[in-house]
Amino acid sequence: MLSLPLAAESPVAGVVADLAIILLAAKLGDELFKRIGQPALIGEILAGLLIGPSVLGIVEPGETVEVFAELGVVFLLFWVGLETKLSDMREVGANAGLAGVGGVILPFAAGTAAGLIFGESTATSVFIGSALAATSVGITSAVFAELGILATRAARTVLGAAVIDDILALLLVAVAVGIAAEGGVDVAAIAVSAALAFGFIAVFALGGTAVMRRMPQLLHAPRFAESPLLPAVILCLGIAAIAAKIGLAAVIGAFLAGMIVAETKEQHPIEDEIAPLYAFFPPFFFASIGLQLDLDVLIETGTLLLVVGLSALAAVTKLIGTWPGARNLGHREGRIVAVGMVPRGEVGIIVAGIGAASGVVDTELFAAIVGMSIVTTLTVPPFLRRLAAPD
Amino acid sequence: MLSLPLAAESPVAGVVADLAIILLAAKLGDELFKRIGQPALIGEILAGLLIGPSVLGIVEPGETVEVFAELGVVFLLFWVGLETKLSDMREVGANAGLAGVGGVILPFAAGTAAGLIFGESTATSVFIGSALAATSVGITSAVFAELGILATRAARTVLGAAVIDDILALLLVAVAVGIAAEGGVDVAAIAVSAALAFGFIAVFALGGTAVMRRMPQLLHAPRFAESPLLPAVILCLGIAAIAAKIGLAAVIGAFLAGMIVAETKEQHPIEDEIAPLYAFFPPFFFASIGLQLDLDVLIETGTLLLVVGLSALAAVTKLIGTWPGARNLGHREGRIVAVGMVPRGEVGIIVAGIGAASGVVDTELFAAIVGMSIVTTLTVPPFLRRLAAPD
Repeated sequence: MLSLPLAAESPVAGVVADLAIILLAAKLGDELFKRIGQPALIGEILAGLLIGPSVLGIVEPGETVEVFAELGVVFLLFWVGLETKLSDMREVGANAGLAGVGGVILPFAAGTAAGLIFGESTATSVFIGSALAATSVGITSAVFAELGILATRAARTVLGAAVIDDILALLLVAVAVGIAAEGGVDVAAIAVSAALAFGFIAVFALGGTAVMRRMPQLLHAPRFAESPLLPAVILCLGIAAIAAKIGLAAVIGAFLAGMIVAETKEQHPIEDEIAPLYAFFPPFFFASIGLQLDLDVLIETGTLLLVVGLSALAAVTKLIGTWPGARNLGHREGRIVAVGMVPRGEVGIIVAGIGAASGVVDTELFAAIVGMSIVTTLTVPPFLRRLAAPD
Repeated sequence: MLSLPLAAESPVAGVVADLAIILLAAKLGDELFKRIGQPALIGEILAGLLIGPSVLGIVEPGETVEVFAELGVVFLLFWVGLETKLSDMREVGANAGLAGVGGVILPFAAGTAAGLIFGESTATSVFIGSALAATSVGITSAVFAELGILATRAARTVLGAAVIDDILALLLVAVAVGIAAEGGVDVAAIAVSAALAFGFIAVFALGGTAVMRRMPQLLHAPRFAESPLLPAVILCLGIAAIAAKIGLAAVIGAFLAGMIVAETKEQHPIEDEIAPLYAFFPPFFFASIGLQLDLDVLIETGTLLLVVGLSALAAVTKLIGTWPGARNLGHREGRIVAVGMVPRGEVGIIVAGIGAASGVVDTELFAAIVGMSIVTTLTVPPFLRRLAAPD
């Protein structure tokens, strides 16, 4: 190796190289999977797995890649929010609520019971239940967007149910962390979290859209050359950060921000300006799911069996739990809703990570939950494509 | 403070909040400075200073902010490259070469001599000279872009001279690091660095543009929904990373990538698709210059005097050194070129950082060089505006 004096001084240069490699690999995976008629996002996830530590080891996950992944799913849900009107969400509200609540209770109960039956502690069992209760709105949204069916009743029901899921998952994880830390649950703190979460959504979904409807010039008045793009992006990142601050997923905030900005759509076709950010960031989200998978741990036989068992339990309980809400949309759309709720995606991985940080989820269980999240994420999109195909 | 169980688990959420705050502050500074008729980028730098550790302390610089700043100047120069044709650069080549070489030799000699006269070691003196020799193409490009004069001969001469400056600065810093490390200079390593730098530029400027002229479908052929945006972005990040790897500034690679992509412009108005990325990232670059300024150290009287002295020396030697090349463009354009080369921007800060890492630039001198970089960066844009104003 030649001595290049300046090169060693720039850690940022290595990060720029990593970003270029991730983007290139993800888009090659995307291209390949489109050519063989499979969902592009699976190609992006597998590309991440290929270049990650488990296989080629070209790219290591790190803070910056994590931030780009987070911004990826944030811009993804912001885009989805732009395509969604508050009135559309109201229309599907009752069914979404039923599907969301049912789709949390049954997997949570089954996961917790399974943990207790196999001799895990209460705290660990509650974490297993919480991970099974999660829903990845990012994965399903991306499939809906790819198929061009974001505007259907089924897609909106899934979105609404996923928002409700996220609130319930927040509360379940709060319970699990409480049990792990003190052996008890701080009911007052959890009530505060619940009130904050519902208050946040009410304020931004109802108040935010009402303000924007009456004052669309908020995005247009400044002399920014980049108006309304940058005001909209600042709103998106700001509300996403607030959502994360109160313990919700940042993507819930991004989705609400998209709905708020969508109220000004008559004034400006803002989708055109957001499109390049929506093209640039989300591949990091999908590739990073692959980057995080540790194949070595998964390949141990015990863990593999655990992954298969958890995945089956996750899929069956979610399908049954969401059905009472989903069935009201009719047989065809109902199946899209129920299947669309199955992927655990990044949410299962985040819950497992919190369990690991709390010391009650060990390495093997962590790998198994990550494996379950990825199995449900990789297997569902082809089914969704088939279900959504015109007859 | 209420206990919010999940909130503490997400460091990424804090980073998203920081990004939202930086973007908001930078664009408010931009807006304010436009309203008072001053260059917007100065408003963005001062906004960074205001929210940074020196004043309000709302945002701390960290790895992610640094990466966003780097991508900011990378997309800035990519944009500038898109506006530049190889033939235009050839046309200004001789004058740019003369201005670039003269604008490095004189400030370097003066800075090194000043260091030796004030009793600094040879290594430290060579670092002072190198920092004075630097040119920030990012700052001047942004002013030219804001004034809409990127296509003028003067702007292209500055760009060409800045590329040459960067190669020479690379070699000077290599010399300085060599002296600091072993008390001697590894001539062979420096020759290799020089050959690599010139080879890199020749290959991409001549070869890259020739390939793209003949095969524009390289950006368009794949089935990416996001073609040609993402292939172009991958090319930009990839060439920027290679430039950084061989010790050049990443922005030199980004500029060449822009020139290469510009060869396909007849096929596709790619600027429209890059524009949102160009709007999103550069504010982080400007704000981050302000974030890095440590006012406490600067306010000590000795350092303040040092800043004033270094800034004067930097400005005068750069103006005189570039004049032999600049004057050939005539009086009016010549003055734009000479003044346009004065800002040291991020390059002076990077050189000072390398010196500090090598142990030969102490805290006070580091602060003074950063101060000089910022003084030359803040004072020049108003002059440039006036010089470039139509008579």
